[in-house]
Amino acid sequence: MSNFEVRTYDAAGRLGELTVPRAGVTVETPTLMPVVNPHVQTVAPSTLESEFGAEILITNSYILHGSDELREPAVERGLHDLLDFSGAIMTDSGSFQLAEYGEIDVTTEEILTFQYDIGSDIGTPVDIPTPPDVAREQAVDEQETTQERLERATEVDTGEMLVTAPVQGSTHPDLRERAAREAAGTGLDVFPLGAVVPLMNEYRYDDLVDVVAACKRGLGERGPVHLFGAGHPMMFALAAALGCDLFDSAAYALYARDDRYLTVRGTEQLDDLAYFPCECPVCTAHEPDAVRSMADDDREELLARHNLHVTYGEIRTVRQAIRGGNLLELVDARARGHPTMLDGYRTLLDHAAQLERTDRVSKDAFFHTSTESARRPEVLRHQQRLDRFELAGDEVLLTEGGSNSDYDETWGVVPPFGPYPRGLSETYPLTAEVPDRTDRRAYEVAADGVARLVDLHPDVSFTLVHDDWPATALERVPDRVRLRDLHARE
Amino acid sequence: MSNFEVRTYDAAGRLGELTVPRAGVTVETPTLMPVVNPHVQTVAPSTLESEFGAEILITNSYILHGSDELREPAVERGLHDLLDFSGAIMTDSGSFQLAEYGEIDVTTEEILTFQYDIGSDIGTPVDIPTPPDVAREQAVDEQETTQERLERATEVDTGEMLVTAPVQGSTHPDLRERAAREAAGTGLDVFPLGAVVPLMNEYRYDDLVDVVAACKRGLGERGPVHLFGAGHPMMFALAAALGCDLFDSAAYALYARDDRYLTVRGTEQLDDLAYFPCECPVCTAHEPDAVRSMADDDREELLARHNLHVTYGEIRTVRQAIRGGNLLELVDARARGHPTMLDGYRTLLDHAAQLERTDRVSKDAFFHTSTESARRPEVLRHQQRLDRFELAGDEVLLTEGGSNSDYDETWGVVPPFGPYPRGLSETYPLTAEVPDRTDRRAYEVAADGVARLVDLHPDVSFTLVHDDWPATALERVPDRVRLRDLHARE
Repeated sequence: MSNFEVRTYDAAGRLGELTVPRAGVTVETPTLMPVVNPHVQTVAPSTLESEFGAEILITNSYILHGSDELREPAVERGLHDLLDFSGAIMTDSGSFQLAEYGEIDVTTEEILTFQYDIGSDIGTPVDIPTPPDVAREQAVDEQETTQERLERATEVDTGEMLVTAPVQGSTHPDLRERAAREAAGTGLDVFPLGAVVPLMNEYRYDDLVDVVAACKRGLGERGPVHLFGAGHPMMFALAAALGCDLFDSAAYALYARDDRYLTVRGTEQLDDLAYFPCECPVCTAHEPDAVRSMADDDREELLARHNLHVTYGEIRTVRQAIRGGNLLELVDARARGHPTMLDGYRTLLDHAAQLERTDRVSKDAFFHTSTESARRPEVLRHQQRLDRFELAGDEVLLTEGGSNSDYDETWGVVPPFGPYPRGLSETYPLTAEVPDRTDRRAYEVAADGVARLVDLHPDVSFTLVHDDWPATALERVPDRVRLRDLHARE
Repeated sequence: MSNFEVRTYDAAGRLGELTVPRAGVTVETPTLMPVVNPHVQTVAPSTLESEFGAEILITNSYILHGSDELREPAVERGLHDLLDFSGAIMTDSGSFQLAEYGEIDVTTEEILTFQYDIGSDIGTPVDIPTPPDVAREQAVDEQETTQERLERATEVDTGEMLVTAPVQGSTHPDLRERAAREAAGTGLDVFPLGAVVPLMNEYRYDDLVDVVAACKRGLGERGPVHLFGAGHPMMFALAAALGCDLFDSAAYALYARDDRYLTVRGTEQLDDLAYFPCECPVCTAHEPDAVRSMADDDREELLARHNLHVTYGEIRTVRQAIRGGNLLELVDARARGHPTMLDGYRTLLDHAAQLERTDRVSKDAFFHTSTESARRPEVLRHQQRLDRFELAGDEVLLTEGGSNSDYDETWGVVPPFGPYPRGLSETYPLTAEVPDRTDRRAYEVAADGVARLVDLHPDVSFTLVHDDWPATALERVPDRVRLRDLHARE
């Protein structure tokens, strides 16, 4: 996959570079591909490029193919000239229309050739977008059809154009995983995760996370991964943490048309806003009352610009978080936007072992910022690696206090990680900052770490000196560990 | 207190209007007062007003008083002309210098008269800023001195100038409460909470919350309350939820001088930024690399402008949250910026009963977005008010499922609120959105609600039908309640 290179990881999130040879550009990821409607442009592609820094956009080749007005100009002038955009252009194939209207009148071969002819940089076969919750049989049948088309797509002469391999499989994780493995096997270039829009529309972020995690298991570290139809900045951090690299947004324009205002904490109706909770150029220069009283077109454009500013701002925030090694802290913050986002975050942490595989070993800081933090991959990794240490003797003290020479060896203990050799106390993640008002879950997970260490050393006798741990944590410590309360002892 | 009017509450947070008669303006609160140094202006006051919408600023009369260069012009031309600012101007008295250098050479009478002479709109007596953690005796002595000065201040002829009554008392909550009560008793106009900067510098947000809550108990609903020296947008929501109305920031300029970049999730060093995690006009128009290579003065001004944009943006976000009734959801999100902010939030919820007193009865939605949500004032209020309902019979069913006519009455049960008459199911806060992956704490608090209802009706027999509640919740249900699992029953 020489067209995509990962520069750094945080959890399964990654800063990457997608080389798009036909456009002669390299696109930094994660990134947003604004959806440009060939017929109606709320914000001109040239403006997306110059004002918002768009390096890539997406448009629909099926609409162009079916347009008496635009088909010929698209072929003659090429997409870049037609849209006035010099970055990379990805084209969709009509699969969305297939899902909406039940049939379309092109084949994968036809539409890929058309995409090539109009100068698309990344083309898309006609896959079958299987909706969530369908019976397994339908999901299997349709995925097989999609896979056949992907294989046919590899035989179409598309020159330097990259070609996507959409991953379907409905809400059946094992089918998603298989579909992803087969898609990766085609050698195609970009992996859109398809038919997830209904999950997002219904705020099913928990199911979305399970679907994406399954697809990622099948894809391995191949990429880039495109979360098709994901355009709300509220969930970019969550999706990025799973290893999604490309988002596409029609939301900035569609929402603007309905007076909807995007924020990283959700969606607001313009009518409900007395103040703009934002510092973008639109919101620093206008008051909501003034925007409400504008002409429809002006208001729509202004809201679309706000929506784009907040969307690209969140892309930068996600990138900086990956770079700074605090993407999971960002996910933790964004999870507070809506209870269903919290469900998504809690589900993400079910996949901690999967995130751990690529998570980098050392970062600047681990901030324990919620009850959920105790389930982060760094904690899991620390406890998994307890089997790497020898213990120097039969009597071992695990303590939140100081060393004691009555024991053969003293280890530290810290929530949520549990026991650690004292020599590691200044290394990541044991340098974690944890609230003084530590939550019960952090103690319980620390107790699980104690239990793991104790189980690894059946012949060693352990004493745990803890600082007033709650009963629910102490219950998880094996019976053979002697317990002492730090303050009771003094 | 006719110069301050509250328009709406959320928790103890309030949207208010401060009328400043001498300036002839009304200032909307919560708001920020940028600190303007009379000698060095990183961003000109006229720019603060025109570009950032500053309605009020704060400057130091003691510096002007001691300046051979500026004292006479200040008296002759007046502060508004000197600073070129038409909004309200508050002046500090030199108390900060007193705290830093141990003595100053003016009395309260002298400095208040000087403030009046230079045209200040809100003047400040010379109080004694007692630092945190001092012995009780010192805190008492100094608070008594401060109070004497406040009383002397009431006798100075200050015309239409408003005069502040700073509240001291170190980190002794009872002294803070008494100081606040006495300050309120003077009839002065604005209530700065003093000497909290050391707490903020040391990230002691838990202690800060306890101090502010104590002051607010003493002040009652008087206002406006000024959290003196609070200029980091990360904690505006937290402080606003306690009922702070005015913040002041030198941070925007001081931080800019050190290449520090403010965000609502903390502070970043410019050197650590590869991407600007922000959508303000500065961050949409510049890349970090380009800003790093600028001349010092240009870089400082640009960073100061970013810092101001994000600071005023957060003020608008807080105001919109109060208006929308979701201030606590905002606090919940902001608490994820740093573990010590989480400590502050958890401490805030210790004061849920105090927040409940002013919290409005109905809002659009209650979003359960964290383990902490179960401790919100709305939950407390619901459980407190269980004593308002009669039960129609001796056999009452509390259930997460449907009604059952075998019982005299059926109530619903929902985490985290607990039991409720079914007629209330469509009213706030029972319309709460709770994650499907409900946390243990939410069930436990619901169980506490069941316990309260059961205790209120010793002669009634209760059955609780729950949907797989965890053991830690069921333990909190009184023994005499019959328990059934919803799914075990079906």
